[in-house]
Amino acid sequence: MKSGISSEAHRAGLKVDQDRLWNSLLDMAQIGARDDGGVCRHALSSEDIEARALLIGWAKQRGYQVSVDAAANLWVRRSGKNDDLEPVVAGSHMDSQPAGGKFDGAYGVLAAFEALVAMDDAGVNTRRPVDLVAWTNEEGGRFDRGCTGSSVWSGAMAVADYLDDVGIDGVRLGDALLSTLAATPDLPMRPDTWTAHAYVEPHIEQGPVLEAKSIPIAAVTSIQGVRWMNVMIRGKGSHAGTTPFAVRKDAFQAAVRSIDALNRLMDDPDDVTRFTVGRVVLDPNSPNTVPDSAMFTIDFRHPDKQVLEDKAAQIEPLIRQAASPCTVEIVPTTTMDPTPFPEQIVGGIERAAERLGLQSIRLPSGAFHDALYAAMACPSGMIFIPCRDGLSHHPDEWAEPADCAAGARVLTATLVDLANS
Amino acid sequence: MKSGISSEAHRAGLKVDQDRLWNSLLDMAQIGARDDGGVCRHALSSEDIEARALLIGWAKQRGYQVSVDAAANLWVRRSGKNDDLEPVVAGSHMDSQPAGGKFDGAYGVLAAFEALVAMDDAGVNTRRPVDLVAWTNEEGGRFDRGCTGSSVWSGAMAVADYLDDVGIDGVRLGDALLSTLAATPDLPMRPDTWTAHAYVEPHIEQGPVLEAKSIPIAAVTSIQGVRWMNVMIRGKGSHAGTTPFAVRKDAFQAAVRSIDALNRLMDDPDDVTRFTVGRVVLDPNSPNTVPDSAMFTIDFRHPDKQVLEDKAAQIEPLIRQAASPCTVEIVPTTTMDPTPFPEQIVGGIERAAERLGLQSIRLPSGAFHDALYAAMACPSGMIFIPCRDGLSHHPDEWAEPADCAAGARVLTATLVDLANS
Repeated sequence: MKSGISSEAHRAGLKVDQDRLWNSLLDMAQIGARDDGGVCRHALSSEDIEARALLIGWAKQRGYQVSVDAAANLWVRRSGKNDDLEPVVAGSHMDSQPAGGKFDGAYGVLAAFEALVAMDDAGVNTRRPVDLVAWTNEEGGRFDRGCTGSSVWSGAMAVADYLDDVGIDGVRLGDALLSTLAATPDLPMRPDTWTAHAYVEPHIEQGPVLEAKSIPIAAVTSIQGVRWMNVMIRGKGSHAGTTPFAVRKDAFQAAVRSIDALNRLMDDPDDVTRFTVGRVVLDPNSPNTVPDSAMFTIDFRHPDKQVLEDKAAQIEPLIRQAASPCTVEIVPTTTMDPTPFPEQIVGGIERAAERLGLQSIRLPSGAFHDALYAAMACPSGMIFIPCRDGLSHHPDEWAEPADCAAGARVLTATLVDLANS
Repeated sequence: MKSGISSEAHRAGLKVDQDRLWNSLLDMAQIGARDDGGVCRHALSSEDIEARALLIGWAKQRGYQVSVDAAANLWVRRSGKNDDLEPVVAGSHMDSQPAGGKFDGAYGVLAAFEALVAMDDAGVNTRRPVDLVAWTNEEGGRFDRGCTGSSVWSGAMAVADYLDDVGIDGVRLGDALLSTLAATPDLPMRPDTWTAHAYVEPHIEQGPVLEAKSIPIAAVTSIQGVRWMNVMIRGKGSHAGTTPFAVRKDAFQAAVRSIDALNRLMDDPDDVTRFTVGRVVLDPNSPNTVPDSAMFTIDFRHPDKQVLEDKAAQIEPLIRQAASPCTVEIVPTTTMDPTPFPEQIVGGIERAAERLGLQSIRLPSGAFHDALYAAMACPSGMIFIPCRDGLSHHPDEWAEPADCAAGARVLTATLVDLANS
């Protein structure tokens, strides 16, 4: 097998139906569809519940076993010869950014579903079961801390750690979780955390590389490290027309000075560093009142653990200095070191692509994914396909039907050999 | 009269009852009261309607004639010997900032009401009627463009110009106006605009000068000029973890560069210039999405017309240069040149203060007020009283009972002589 993949895996990969997969993507994209062609499907929202119902319906038509766990991760099992063996898991998430696209997350779930169906059509009967998973709240678009479901499954976090998180709509995560689980009372519950044989997640690249090189497949080697934090700066609200600069404590101007300092810290000629201030909330946010407080988020990522830690350590002192005389409170929301994927999985993906006549390269992941947590629980990896202009987290997000099918073929073949090992 | 004020005016001024005025301020502050001791009473909101009902009740108890106009300005008339003569008008506004205080606006309305009552108690019968006015939406805290009511009354704007304005709560101004008028169906309607004999507005200074000098009264000489605008910067939303800086169009970073440039433009060693960015709204405002658009407000004020115009002219080119490659759209929301008040009113206020044994100084107004529009329609002026720490537009806003009464005494005496002229 070092030199290739099994003929069964190859046969199953070829059974992937491009139109069937594409239509499932379009059907799913109608749930939470935005007028601009994008998708807004917040985690644990009514749209999320609707998306789950759609997938469950398809799974039951195919006779797969559907279950759920306390983090509302949704599981779809295609049985193997021995369901007592640890399953091979494939999937991604179905929640989206507020102004998200049709592919980020949904593609991984639907490519995994297409893989199960392709195995049926190829008459493949694997040794191990193959489980599809749709993880809960990967994006962190509604509830700040992303990868809720996969972090619980991996054992890194407990469901209880998240219950009091409050969404941008003011809803408590625990309450949203409850109403989501209540929508599928017939589903059996699985344990929160258990061990799998392997995990493979297909996803659009969300970067420009594959499209630029006209290569359909990337075997992902690692996920860069992440530091997310919320910065709260408190000043003193006062009248914009009468308060001299000398006596102002303008929380937003303090935030601007802080962000200027952070921009200098994050400056990177190689353009590998990723630094983003994506959310800003002022109070009272009134045009002629000097801001009393300013909250902003920091999203900082780097593939090099050392660089990540060195720069992260400088963030708080820099902001405290820049924000004076305002006070500063910084709350880390997500802290994740770079995660390498094992050669066993990366090589398997490469061999599957080669056998299926699809060109591939090795790439690190710029985005972070549920695979990052899954990698704590079992050997894991990812398959990237190209997306137009490297764009994602945007209504214009787009992947070509042929590329979507190519990724599903590689996934199917990879899963079959993993499920037989 | 050049040398002083009438004994009738002096007698009426002395009839101002500090406790009665103070209690009316506390009663009014209960409407829209915040847990932090502040007030949130948005224009044309249910709280505003409640505040109007309270004032109408007091006015009817005293037998004054209450009326309203199409801009929902509320009018309370104390008749004179000849009600066919142009009335003398006094008042301010009852709407507040979202995190506002008990005095900004409300003090001017209630001091004017106390003045009418003091005239009753002094048995004064003026030649002209004296009208109290509570103007609609001075703050611009809910509907961006402030001084809605006074600008209509002055003839500078028409009610129709405002109807399609949308509040921060998404409500159309026209609809909020309708529900406010519907709450007082029994009130006679006055014309939108007409000419008064004079207008005097009492207000807390909203600045640090009177408190620092321990002087209870300022005769306001002018209101500084104002340039308000909304700046919309449009970039391209993309994934925070994968999009290289080189290809980003980060609308918020473009806003930060713009604000840095504006800070340099507005730098003023004399600390006379007032420049504030009080509202910022990002879209999608999600922690790990590069902002697609960033809207921010500019509040720029200066007492010198030339400086105001010169700097204002540089704002748009500066932002366009700083925000590149993002696109910029700037919409002026309020444009007002500095407004001097006539010596007739300023001197009258000074003489009233002197006769009542109250120390006074002349001051320009750092804030802008309804008096700024009233000055277009008739000779106008303002009386300032001290406020603690010069603070306003903040829950901690505070004025001492004795200072509130002093301002009302000066107002009463000033109004009596104006109403007899």
